[in-house]
Amino acid sequence: MIYLRTLRAAKREGLETLSSADIERRTGISSAQVRKDISHFGEFGKRGIGYSVDHALERLSKIMGLDREQRVVIVGAGNLGSALAGYMGFRNSGFRVMAVYDNDPTKIGRKVRGVEVVNIRRLPQTNRKLGARIGIIATPAAAAQGVAEIMARGGIKTILNFAPTRLRDVNDTVVRNVDLTQELEILCYFLSHERKAKAN
Amino acid sequence: MIYLRTLRAAKREGLETLSSADIERRTGISSAQVRKDISHFGEFGKRGIGYSVDHALERLSKIMGLDREQRVVIVGAGNLGSALAGYMGFRNSGFRVMAVYDNDPTKIGRKVRGVEVVNIRRLPQTNRKLGARIGIIATPAAAAQGVAEIMARGGIKTILNFAPTRLRDVNDTVVRNVDLTQELEILCYFLSHERKAKAN
Repeated sequence: MIYLRTLRAAKREGLETLSSADIERRTGISSAQVRKDISHFGEFGKRGIGYSVDHALERLSKIMGLDREQRVVIVGAGNLGSALAGYMGFRNSGFRVMAVYDNDPTKIGRKVRGVEVVNIRRLPQTNRKLGARIGIIATPAAAAQGVAEIMARGGIKTILNFAPTRLRDVNDTVVRNVDLTQELEILCYFLSHERKAKAN
Repeated sequence: MIYLRTLRAAKREGLETLSSADIERRTGISSAQVRKDISHFGEFGKRGIGYSVDHALERLSKIMGLDREQRVVIVGAGNLGSALAGYMGFRNSGFRVMAVYDNDPTKIGRKVRGVEVVNIRRLPQTNRKLGARIGIIATPAAAAQGVAEIMARGGIKTILNFAPTRLRDVNDTVVRNVDLTQELEILCYFLSHERKAKAN
């Protein structure tokens, strides 16, 4: 969420309040739209003073469910899945990887970053106990849609897909496709313009 | 780039033209702003008909440098670096991983997905020959800023940073920080609203 990112940046800079005009300057979202968006989250701005950065951060975190531990499962115990299982950024932000699943008999039963690799076929059953509602797909492209369907059967509600293919939503599960190639393409844009610009 | 993504989606859907109003509906960017942005890329729209999807894609790809091979080096031969070295999405989009660098003597000299792991200290020298201008950092957070400085000395112009820390730009090198945690946070937002919505 761009507002969360903007508020965190403001906090890092030591700012205590942020006006909708400040947010417009930082995000490109018009201050009228900012006021409208933020009004959905409740009243935490004061006319002429702006939003309290701390209060807004706390409120937004709560609304987004970031104030409690979020359980995650990963499918794919290859390099990417292993990297994500050990990604410090997740741990530091309250995400806990409960299990890693794979269909490779040489990987099942082993541990990846301290987490056991479980047979993917057991996901629907074991996840009822683990209670994870977030799934990460780190498989080859061809396997990804099938994995999303298994995840949906296991009670996973939202999926982050790292496989280089766009997945369709499955039943009432929301899929978010991460396109790492797009990140490189943005770099190319800066390269081809040979200019100094803020990439993010 | 959001326009590139929008054009590709339109192409997948079989559309031949896209108007600025269509683009507004898909991106939330006002049609006036769309016309302004796209006018920088040259004339490829016709009033009342819209933009030719193929023509606009070709033009944008060229402007972004995506019409030619882009050489990439990766620093960090761990799980994430290895995963990125073999990421099919990169290969399919014209990105070529030239070398993987690390400081771990047990990794140097080995191959990762067919690419040799080279001592990070040799980067400034070897990259003059390899000619990569894009660098990917896949190291622990503590090492990342130092790696960015070494990359800058080796002629790398843009850096994609996967280490879970925000890097400062180095000299005339542009850094783009990839925040995988943010992707999970967006999922949390959908979860906490228990609603069916398009994540992307």
